[in-house]
Amino acid sequence: MSFWDKLLGRPIATSEEASERLGVLTGIPSFGLDALGSAAYGPEAALTILIPIGLAGVERLFPLSIAIAALLVLVSLSYRQVIEAFPDGGGAYTVASHMLGRRISLLAAAALALDYLLNVSVGISTGVGALVSAVPQLQPYTLALCLSILLLLTVVNLRGARETGFVLTLPTYLFLFCMFTVVIVGLVHAVANGGHPVANGPYRHAAPYTGAVTVWLLLRAFASGCTALTGVEAVSNGVTAFREPRARTAQRTLMCIVSMLAVLLLGAAYLVRAYGIAATDPGRPGYQSLLSSITSAVMGRGFFYGVTIISILALLSCSANTSFAGFPQLCRTLSEDDLLPRFFGARGRRLVYTDGIVTLSVLAAILLIVFGGVTDRLIPLFAIGAFIAFTLSQAGMVRFWQKERARWKLTLNLIGCIATGMTACVMLVAKFIEGAWMSVLIIGALMMLMHAIRKHYAKVAKSAELDHIVLQPNSLPMLAVVPVSHWDRASMAALQFAYSITKDVEVLHIDCPGEDTEVGSDEIETMLHHAEIPPGMVAPKVVTVCSPYRFVIEPIVEYVLKAERENPGRRVAVVVPELVSHGWYHYLLHNYRTTALKARLLLEGNRRIVVINTPWYFSESKAA
Amino acid sequence: MSFWDKLLGRPIATSEEASERLGVLTGIPSFGLDALGSAAYGPEAALTILIPIGLAGVERLFPLSIAIAALLVLVSLSYRQVIEAFPDGGGAYTVASHMLGRRISLLAAAALALDYLLNVSVGISTGVGALVSAVPQLQPYTLALCLSILLLLTVVNLRGARETGFVLTLPTYLFLFCMFTVVIVGLVHAVANGGHPVANGPYRHAAPYTGAVTVWLLLRAFASGCTALTGVEAVSNGVTAFREPRARTAQRTLMCIVSMLAVLLLGAAYLVRAYGIAATDPGRPGYQSLLSSITSAVMGRGFFYGVTIISILALLSCSANTSFAGFPQLCRTLSEDDLLPRFFGARGRRLVYTDGIVTLSVLAAILLIVFGGVTDRLIPLFAIGAFIAFTLSQAGMVRFWQKERARWKLTLNLIGCIATGMTACVMLVAKFIEGAWMSVLIIGALMMLMHAIRKHYAKVAKSAELDHIVLQPNSLPMLAVVPVSHWDRASMAALQFAYSITKDVEVLHIDCPGEDTEVGSDEIETMLHHAEIPPGMVAPKVVTVCSPYRFVIEPIVEYVLKAERENPGRRVAVVVPELVSHGWYHYLLHNYRTTALKARLLLEGNRRIVVINTPWYFSESKAA
Repeated sequence: MSFWDKLLGRPIATSEEASERLGVLTGIPSFGLDALGSAAYGPEAALTILIPIGLAGVERLFPLSIAIAALLVLVSLSYRQVIEAFPDGGGAYTVASHMLGRRISLLAAAALALDYLLNVSVGISTGVGALVSAVPQLQPYTLALCLSILLLLTVVNLRGARETGFVLTLPTYLFLFCMFTVVIVGLVHAVANGGHPVANGPYRHAAPYTGAVTVWLLLRAFASGCTALTGVEAVSNGVTAFREPRARTAQRTLMCIVSMLAVLLLGAAYLVRAYGIAATDPGRPGYQSLLSSITSAVMGRGFFYGVTIISILALLSCSANTSFAGFPQLCRTLSEDDLLPRFFGARGRRLVYTDGIVTLSVLAAILLIVFGGVTDRLIPLFAIGAFIAFTLSQAGMVRFWQKERARWKLTLNLIGCIATGMTACVMLVAKFIEGAWMSVLIIGALMMLMHAIRKHYAKVAKSAELDHIVLQPNSLPMLAVVPVSHWDRASMAALQFAYSITKDVEVLHIDCPGEDTEVGSDEIETMLHHAEIPPGMVAPKVVTVCSPYRFVIEPIVEYVLKAERENPGRRVAVVVPELVSHGWYHYLLHNYRTTALKARLLLEGNRRIVVINTPWYFSESKAA
Repeated sequence: MSFWDKLLGRPIATSEEASERLGVLTGIPSFGLDALGSAAYGPEAALTILIPIGLAGVERLFPLSIAIAALLVLVSLSYRQVIEAFPDGGGAYTVASHMLGRRISLLAAAALALDYLLNVSVGISTGVGALVSAVPQLQPYTLALCLSILLLLTVVNLRGARETGFVLTLPTYLFLFCMFTVVIVGLVHAVANGGHPVANGPYRHAAPYTGAVTVWLLLRAFASGCTALTGVEAVSNGVTAFREPRARTAQRTLMCIVSMLAVLLLGAAYLVRAYGIAATDPGRPGYQSLLSSITSAVMGRGFFYGVTIISILALLSCSANTSFAGFPQLCRTLSEDDLLPRFFGARGRRLVYTDGIVTLSVLAAILLIVFGGVTDRLIPLFAIGAFIAFTLSQAGMVRFWQKERARWKLTLNLIGCIATGMTACVMLVAKFIEGAWMSVLIIGALMMLMHAIRKHYAKVAKSAELDHIVLQPNSLPMLAVVPVSHWDRASMAALQFAYSITKDVEVLHIDCPGEDTEVGSDEIETMLHHAEIPPGMVAPKVVTVCSPYRFVIEPIVEYVLKAERENPGRRVAVVVPELVSHGWYHYLLHNYRTTALKARLLLEGNRRIVVINTPWYFSESKAA
């Protein structure tokens, strides 16, 4: 296993856990990338909606941004309370399941899971898309690049939470440094020039007043701008990954992320107005991202501009990582509540939820392959899940304060709940045809799946429940069936084992007429006829079954089921020889029938049929 | 299993086999698509090399095509003899292994396997590439389209050889009808106009004489034109798929394919000279394929032109299918010679070699994903494998005639061998940097892999060899270890089974401190303390192992190995409860630890350790 040690690092003991946990500085890259990255597309999304009204739109962006920032503060204050009230993580799902009942908690869980998944593919493909438009020669390798980055993220995350935070530190802090420099320098320029600074580099100036400013337009701009809020949820999902006192550390991390995000949003909106910067239509020639325009206006197109653009690209590519931090933790919480298979709750060698990480990667890879690495069309969709989660978590907190009789806090959360709920509705209506219907379908399907899993676990647990151990005396002896295709040491070992558990042994041979590679049943009988059998043992009965199809598995299964029916009250043991050698890869060379046989017997058998594998190791050292 | 019945068709019995076999008319689509499709790129590849010399090149194409057609006839006559001499199929590989020895046969096998694989991805991506350039909106879905076609081909082929031939009949014969119409109409026009017909549609006219005609240029054009010969091998690989007398039917099919191909090659070259058609540079704007130019010149750009273009596209996409006919048959032959895992030799429900088909699909899918569905760059490479195979098969036939003392036939094959060998060398030199080095590397790696597999099988067969069955009397009783995480009816059933095979039973519990979801060992003991145990049975010993990591599997494996060491001469049976319910998908919800435990015990165990699965079916009907 040393290959895995090298790739994933040595195993970490549970007792070493404390040192693996995150502080504020490492927590920001781990859980904040998605939220901070949304500063790159939130204001731009709002301003793009406002393009038709020209300069009027540029002036409306600042008040809109104040409203968005206010909503952001409201939502994050709510999550701050969530972290304190539910320090075991789970975010909106946990709040909903404690406060709003099972059904609604399923909605929160499905919305969050979908959002995390979309965030991975969209984040990676956005980053690669930017890289490819810079280096067009790479265009044919778009998908291969996307999948490579996905693989890299998977491996880094499997190495553990702290190492992941460490790898992401550089792009995060570089991005923050560049952005704050732009905002501060821009503000200084603006103030020094009485609100009308002189631009240092090229950008598209806003056109004069055109079109009518309608309420629906402003509402849509607000809803689009609210994509800036995505990712705020992540910290509250992963509270358990933080250092003790974990609720406190997580709260501080959340507040750091949110205040930086708010400053960036307001700063960008102010600079847009001060310089009169227009949004450009994405997908049209001459497109320039809003952050690029702002940086160009404030700092000119020099070295700093280049560094800033690179830091934005890096941050967007890495923002996919927030899902790797949040999704496995969500899956763990869901699996503890029996809503997902239990293996999501098992932590791997590096104290991370391996199966959650792998599941996320596989699903994201499928999405990337289906869309050929171009998932731009999904960008607008993935905020809907986040806003459903926001609304439910705030609704849950309203209930919480109702019970605690804290009126003031209740009012705050109620306002937040109504605001996020309305935003979600506006998003859903505005984007339903564009693809929001897919989100609705997938969320519905996920909810049904989780419901079915919970029902299944409950049913199994009830039917397997045991309050008293009662052992029965052994009555009738077992019947052992040994399927033999030809005699060698492996089938010999199986036969010997069969005699060690019962006296009643049958050798089953499947004859395939017309296939010349097979051994005939006469050969099987002849060898047995000359066998040395110690006194007290009865020679095995040879049963030959003719198979008109080339199936070997089917007739064995049929025979075993028949034998079980004809021997009521007796157990039937199917003893299957299995060839084993040093390397796992040798497994591919043998036993392909054994594996299929075991699976079929399990599916079609019953409690009285038991499959026993007798391994036969061909290497001397293993012969023991 | 009715889903599989619907998707893949009902199982076919071996006795029905005759009606599933191919005749000449169904054999041509099944095995001839690759060969006939090469008429679309062979002449074009030669003419493209000749672009620099203008009209001189257009005039040189006809003699070059006569040489290529002569080589084609030589190669196909050789394969005709191969089919007669080796009616069990296998083509170049079988000839080489019988006539040239093991090592060289490995080279033939690897070259053929690589060629079949490349043909799938190149065929599909060429077809999709043409479709995408006609409908640019589909461009983002290139890879998704490629993978969908691959999936479709896989399912069609899994349904059986005859159904596949049936599906491919329409595109094949439509292509042949269109092409022969063009050639005949063109010839009539040319003869009627004294060799200088008037064109009916637009195409690029050849430029006046430019550049020097060098031997190396002509050699390269010849080598490129020889890609028209790829696919001729296929029939000889799949002789067993034909109707009896199979050698005769296969020979007739081969001769039909080859004569049609030769007529198309010569006809195209003649028309190129008569109309003075120039090749256009692929990848430059204004590119037009040669067949499109010829059709346009002869028939004009009307309805017939459109139908012809569609038939060419359909044929190219379907030419991938030849690999699905040839590759699984090759794998079967190789697995019978112990060069590939044995499962490649097992025929599935529809009398096809299921595993070969699935393996080919998976490898082709990987290739398509790595190259993002754009495998154009691989086109020149995939003729090299074919020419290595041609050379080896002819060399083998030279040996064959040497033994048979047939001088005339020997001379023919010797000429063919030298010609194809030289062509292979020219190809390798001309394309080494472009990527032929990859072919060389992959072929080498495949040869080493096959050699290793043969060695492994030989070693295992020798060490497992048995000439006499000797059963031993049972001496010491078994030790049964039952790993229990908590008590339920499933673990209870495992315990009961353990008592049915031995009196010496241990219950093993793994304690994970710090994980709050686990059951403590005291709970295990308490339940056992109150257990009802019939007289004569001894209560199981409870062993608790503490696991500082969260691993559960590792400590069980370690304990079992220790128990085996401490009980020399005794067998250790690990009895593992397994929860089973109706659907296979429920399997995902339980037993994830069981599967991992079985795999680890198999890898690290020895002949005295046996894993026993006691299934516990939670549904009432299965409880039996």
